[in-house]
Amino acid sequence: MRRIPLRRPSRKFYTSRLFLEAIVIRIGIVGTGYGAREMMRLAAIHPEIALVAVASTSAAGKPLGDVLPAFRNVHDLTVETFDAAALAKKCDAVVIGVPSGQSISVVSALRDAGARVLDLGGDFRLKDTAAFEKYYKEKHGAAHHVAESVYGLAPVYREQLKSAQLVCVPGCYPISAILPLRPILDHASTDIPIVIDAISGISGAGRSPSDGYHFPEMNENLKAYKLGVHQHVPEIEQELGHRAMVQFTPHVAPLTRGILTTITFRPAGAIDPVAAYASYAQEPFVRVLPQGQLPEVKHVRGSNFCDIGWTTDARTGNLLIICAIDNLMGGTAGMAVQCLNIMFGLDERTGLNFAGMAP
Amino acid sequence: MRRIPLRRPSRKFYTSRLFLEAIVIRIGIVGTGYGAREMMRLAAIHPEIALVAVASTSAAGKPLGDVLPAFRNVHDLTVETFDAAALAKKCDAVVIGVPSGQSISVVSALRDAGARVLDLGGDFRLKDTAAFEKYYKEKHGAAHHVAESVYGLAPVYREQLKSAQLVCVPGCYPISAILPLRPILDHASTDIPIVIDAISGISGAGRSPSDGYHFPEMNENLKAYKLGVHQHVPEIEQELGHRAMVQFTPHVAPLTRGILTTITFRPAGAIDPVAAYASYAQEPFVRVLPQGQLPEVKHVRGSNFCDIGWTTDARTGNLLIICAIDNLMGGTAGMAVQCLNIMFGLDERTGLNFAGMAP
Amino acid sequence: MRRIPLRRPSRKFYTSRLFLEAIVIRIGIVGTGYGAREMMRLAAIHPEIALVAVASTSAAGKPLGDVLPAFRNVHDLTVETFDAAALAKKCDAVVIGVPSGQSISVVSALRDAGARVLDLGGDFRLKDTAAFEKYYKEKHGAAHHVAESVYGLAPVYREQLKSAQLVCVPGCYPISAILPLRPILDHASTDIPIVIDAISGISGAGRSPSDGYHFPEMNENLKAYKLGVHQHVPEIEQELGHRAMVQFTPHVAPLTRGILTTITFRPAGAIDPVAAYASYAQEPFVRVLPQGQLPEVKHVRGSNFCDIGWTTDARTGNLLIICAIDNLMGGTAGMAVQCLNIMFGLDERTGLNFAGMAP
Amino acid sequence: MRRIPLRRPSRKFYTSRLFLEAIVIRIGIVGTGYGAREMMRLAAIHPEIALVAVASTSAAGKPLGDVLPAFRNVHDLTVETFDAAALAKKCDAVVIGVPSGQSISVVSALRDAGARVLDLGGDFRLKDTAAFEKYYKEKHGAAHHVAESVYGLAPVYREQLKSAQLVCVPGCYPISAILPLRPILDHASTDIPIVIDAISGISGAGRSPSDGYHFPEMNENLKAYKLGVHQHVPEIEQELGHRAMVQFTPHVAPLTRGILTTITFRPAGAIDPVAAYASYAQEPFVRVLPQGQLPEVKHVRGSNFCDIGWTTDARTGNLLIICAIDNLMGGTAGMAVQCLNIMFGLDERTGLNFAGMAP
Repeated sequence: MRRIPLRRPSRKFYTSRLFLEAIVIRIGIVGTGYGAREMMRLAAIHPEIALVAVASTSAAGKPLGDVLPAFRNVHDLTVETFDAAALAKKCDAVVIGVPSGQSISVVSALRDAGARVLDLGGDFRLKDTAAFEKYYKEKHGAAHHVAESVYGLAPVYREQLKSAQLVCVPGCYPISAILPLRPILDHASTDIPIVIDAISGISGAGRSPSDGYHFPEMNENLKAYKLGVHQHVPEIEQELGHRAMVQFTPHVAPLTRGILTTITFRPAGAIDPVAAYASYAQEPFVRVLPQGQLPEVKHVRGSNFCDIGWTTDARTGNLLIICAIDNLMGGTAGMAVQCLNIMFGLDERTGLNFAGMAP
Repeated sequence: MRRIPLRRPSRKFYTSRLFLEAIVIRIGIVGTGYGAREMMRLAAIHPEIALVAVASTSAAGKPLGDVLPAFRNVHDLTVETFDAAALAKKCDAVVIGVPSGQSISVVSALRDAGARVLDLGGDFRLKDTAAFEKYYKEKHGAAHHVAESVYGLAPVYREQLKSAQLVCVPGCYPISAILPLRPILDHASTDIPIVIDAISGISGAGRSPSDGYHFPEMNENLKAYKLGVHQHVPEIEQELGHRAMVQFTPHVAPLTRGILTTITFRPAGAIDPVAAYASYAQEPFVRVLPQGQLPEVKHVRGSNFCDIGWTTDARTGNLLIICAIDNLMGGTAGMAVQCLNIMFGLDERTGLNFAGMAP
Repeated sequence: MRRIPLRRPSRKFYTSRLFLEAIVIRIGIVGTGYGAREMMRLAAIHPEIALVAVASTSAAGKPLGDVLPAFRNVHDLTVETFDAAALAKKCDAVVIGVPSGQSISVVSALRDAGARVLDLGGDFRLKDTAAFEKYYKEKHGAAHHVAESVYGLAPVYREQLKSAQLVCVPGCYPISAILPLRPILDHASTDIPIVIDAISGISGAGRSPSDGYHFPEMNENLKAYKLGVHQHVPEIEQELGHRAMVQFTPHVAPLTRGILTTITFRPAGAIDPVAAYASYAQEPFVRVLPQGQLPEVKHVRGSNFCDIGWTTDARTGNLLIICAIDNLMGGTAGMAVQCLNIMFGLDERTGLNFAGMAP
Repeated sequence: MRRIPLRRPSRKFYTSRLFLEAIVIRIGIVGTGYGAREMMRLAAIHPEIALVAVASTSAAGKPLGDVLPAFRNVHDLTVETFDAAALAKKCDAVVIGVPSGQSISVVSALRDAGARVLDLGGDFRLKDTAAFEKYYKEKHGAAHHVAESVYGLAPVYREQLKSAQLVCVPGCYPISAILPLRPILDHASTDIPIVIDAISGISGAGRSPSDGYHFPEMNENLKAYKLGVHQHVPEIEQELGHRAMVQFTPHVAPLTRGILTTITFRPAGAIDPVAAYASYAQEPFVRVLPQGQLPEVKHVRGSNFCDIGWTTDARTGNLLIICAIDNLMGGTAGMAVQCLNIMFGLDERTGLNFAGMAP
């Protein structure tokens, strides 16, 4: 973090008198997938972040605006080959947006070069490497970095994030399950696996084309997948403090962005959700709705908000919780920016305090 | 059911030598909503059904092709005012596709006039009128017709349907829950409410425009609704023989047709789904997939099939079942045609034996 | 075409007394892409077609229901390796649904083996092989088969189709332009290139995944492509009898099926569209709407209809024509079945006389 | 425009040291439709705009977050009854987002009260009131305000906007036609009506539910409408300086946001688009692509950019131009904010300098 004379010197039209001498966080991004793109979008909106480098092997040497035309006239950068030392030198923080499995070596190189790193992927989230190897189907070659990593769920790990050198940004499904469930488990227990049925937009599957997500195959379609074996199962249980087992079933529906998660919780005794959720009263991006009001993806799309609604079913004795997030924002890049704000001493809401795109 | 010289005398081009002197079921349809339209579509495909009347108060007097342009050149009919006696006289069966609540009087009038009736709505499904009044929020003025009605789930009520005079076609959500669950409950019990999380296309909400289903509001959206209070809860429990309580949560996603239902079943003891589903081996429209294969809406869209897939989660002890149907076909009009085939002595597959529209 | 004892002997449940001793056209299909799949769907609906073989190199040896789950319980076939002689022997007609460019050798082999062939691709449509080589960017190695091929536009080439041995089914865009324009050009001329702006669903791009048609890339997107150089330009001009030049611009929108084509025609003199379109009065699948009514894709989706609407703009002097088809039905497989009906002496409407799927 | 101590005093968490004593434009918004909502979204992102009032008859008295849940925690306002004097007093500018036809009285009252006004609707755009009455089918009761209104197309009317008291923000379709065509008409003429075929997302039709835009009716649909009689015809011709007649045909496709406009221009002589578009080199939000590259809606969705691509067809002699905008951003609210920036002396890019949401 350094004082620099002009916040976005590459933007030749920009003359606003407000931003001279501002404190600016210089970030680099590795990757050009959907998480990385959303970080680029937020970097342009955020008043105290400057995007100074994008590294990608496949696109190296090309102007960013040729690779991703949405960014023409917005980020005046040429994509670089990945060079850990160079990135560590010119960036205050580096955000990694490469597919899970590929970030182990990228993160290790950057950490060894001294960079502060935020990894959008799943490689450093599981503290139990045996669980990692079981669910991710590969060996983990950087266990010492797992140890130093802070789980980037801002409402929970705020204090640890202030000095974190390596942040593993949580998975999108886990955020939509952990945020609504932690306060409940602070007030109630359950003997029965919690049923978590989540529906996701297709951007969660990444940017690589495949048979299943070819437009005519997925449009007007619904499906479930990875029943009982999804890699987010151990992540959710870890962050619930292993206080309950979860039955997690992910689904996909024909939309691009958004997750709606439905949780059926069978409490062992009495439970007062109003009291439980009082802990979120000061959270800037968690909105707990009054009983009976339910969240919808359209109210959070494009924003960092996590909306939680709940009701109790007296007939069955269950507590039902619905949670809505935008998987790329509150579920990935928005959460990463909130972590960055904490890491660099800014107000957490800086650059994120806007509403969803509705319609 | 009468022998008539030419199957579709109104179609002046039709000369196929095969259909002279065929047995034809003359049907009438009341209503022009989505269920009614799907019946019209199937009537054109079915080789032994002739659509002889469409009655609708709002559209009476207009050519059907002006009201519903998809049917221009297909059904050469003028929409009629509803007249129970006239319909009873010229139709072998009358299918009712009006909103729930409105069919009580329509069905009663037609039954009093002697017609065989199939009601696509929910007014005659619940044998317990107290449950009807609780969930539908109105008095039921035709309890004697509830008593004579046969629940039109062909795989279950085949024998009763042969002579049925009033058929209440099941609801779309219930079909997707009852068909996968009945064989399981024949082989296992559970002490815990069965969690049924279902996702539906928007056609299930009917043809009337509303704020929530205006295109820009529902496109790219996901939401849950009527948690614990949906009128299909008592219908499902009735048809499971009250052997289990269900926690049913319906969701909507941005597609037009299709339901995907995810069932989390916690058996009290051991359960062998293969043995349980053996009872469906001869069902023409129930396709039970091998363990590990999962149904998708795209494989049933536009067809009468009900696809069922399942897996067990050894870690949690749960049985997970996924069911896919087209809510307007296997979930409404296709099921109604299957009932009609049984009622009139035809092979059950007649006019329905085609695949889904994929893509 | 042979008399066979049971129409669909593989369907063990089928006992309808009507179909014994029926005349049945035995067809084979080469390929498993979207055009081929739609042929399989129509073969199940058509009362006088039996699908007896599916050949595909990539899927050979597998049950069709494993390759395309929508067809489980519908077509009880195992996919075969392509063998021209074997197909010619057991099929009355073979339909080719492989990508353009690949059908030249497939069609040649089948014709040499004596089969009657319908090619859904573009390889045999252009009589001018120089135009083929310019627009398709490859040499044509089977010019003698081009000479014998009949352009399978039923309303225009009905007589030639009766005895055709090789039918090239027209392209989807050309059908939507030629059918509305031919009658107009019979009554009027123009000195200005006719502007044809067409919008297509994504199934027109085929079943192979690609960056551009990955769901999150194409959902909520609109784009134009191949301006001035699309291979359908010479096809349209050929079938307009080279009476006008066309400025054809194709677009894609986020839907699976359907084409809406907007034609701006600047007549050199007076023009009476009512008189021009009188020639379609007896066409079973062309529906010309009254002036001022406009077609929509939803009225033709899933059907063989081609809907045409028009208006004149007195201020500009232009005639505006809108045409809607389902690209896979009236634009491909439905048109192929109409051709088959003509080739084998059936009523043209057999197996096609149903409405679109709406909704 | 006044100096106020804390930019967003209602946001209790906000402490960023940068914004104390900033210059802030206080805006009010009349209406809660889609244009109004997008203004609210932009007001939260823009560093120098504060939303101080929302007026709406139907929602008066309710917290904004209850009316539009996307804005919970973002704008802490209660919706007010419309009161021109009160709004004029507390706002530096008032933005009107009510349906066309209804803004005449609202704008008049605000202007009479001395407010600077931006009208998102069409009531003040046509200088020729006869044309207004012909295309909008009503009398115009405020012709004197038409005279003072400045057409809010920033790249064209930059100078006039600086002191404008009433700005009529252009229509979405006209922006997508005028921006690409003006430079061309500065370099070339045409004798033939310019063919403009535009495709729009459904948000352009407003937030009121209707039969045609009910989700199951519009999903998987395409249609054209108002051929030759759309109210944007005279607006486009006015802003092209009546140098050409246009044949404008609007279409809708199943997406929420975005317009793709295809222009077929038949030049009377030679034309060099590269030279013509050089005039846009310094425009912050107009991106002219190199010849052969074509814009797509996904590259502008959610942003203020207007992307223009073009090619020439040597065979036909036509120039083809494709233009993509987000109808609610560069086509409405983004353009309004660009006007506000000019009106209040800010850099034009302030609060708008971000990329589209992709995916």
